[in-house]
Amino acid sequence: MSKSKLVVTPVQACSAAPLVRRALTEQHAGELASAFKALSDPVRLRLLSSIASREGQEACVCDLSTGIDLTQPTISHHLKVLREAGLLVSERRASWVYYRVVPEALQRLSEVLLVESGAGVDA
Amino acid sequence: MSKSKLVVTPVQACSAAPLVRRALTEQHAGELASAFKALSDPVRLRLLSSIASREGQEACVCDLSTGIDLTQPTISHHLKVLREAGLLVSERRASWVYYRVVPEALQRLSEVLLVESGAGVDA
Repeated sequence: MSKSKLVVTPVQACSAAPLVRRALTEQHAGELASAFKALSDPVRLRLLSSIASREGQEACVCDLSTGIDLTQPTISHHLKVLREAGLLVSERRASWVYYRVVPEALQRLSEVLLVESGAGVDA
Repeated sequence: MSKSKLVVTPVQACSAAPLVRRALTEQHAGELASAFKALSDPVRLRLLSSIASREGQEACVCDLSTGIDLTQPTISHHLKVLREAGLLVSERRASWVYYRVVPEALQRLSEVLLVESGAGVDA
């Protein structure tokens, strides 16, 4: 697990204009790079996908270690990175923390990578 | 500029099933994480977007330093990372190298992040 500090901007704040439509500004590129950095770890992708593919796109942290050979603190660290990137939200209920996907954040990143017909308008 | 070695799998090889549809396998998560790692740097995103937004989604390396305050070798390093991730292809013509976007690779990543209605079928 990487201990490097990840400075992130929640992806909800990013514009969703496809990067094939116009060249990204420096600020927008920085925001998007943070979001993609949160997705650049296989464990985080598996955790996100595990939550996203469940009914209600939600899971108890107690159910997320199945099939992932990592300690609970490591899993919690990765979930925190995804939360700080705006891809998950968390809520405590009694003894457990539940994580839910932010579909708008995934959708926004999906749209940024979208290849539209008629792209390439800038010279 | 990061000197860390990036081991990547060209994203063309990855399945494009949305991660909200079913939990990712370990192998697939590793492949996707490599692609997202290539996108996790603001300079690489700006270069990719700069190429993708041009006519023909292609650019000469000689035109890519405009507005990016980096040396040519650093820019070439970032372009190589994008190429190794399968997001760009390159071709030498006379004295210059030209880079072209691989739209299928961007589209595949876009589809992986797609949020479909009716998602969340796994328990």
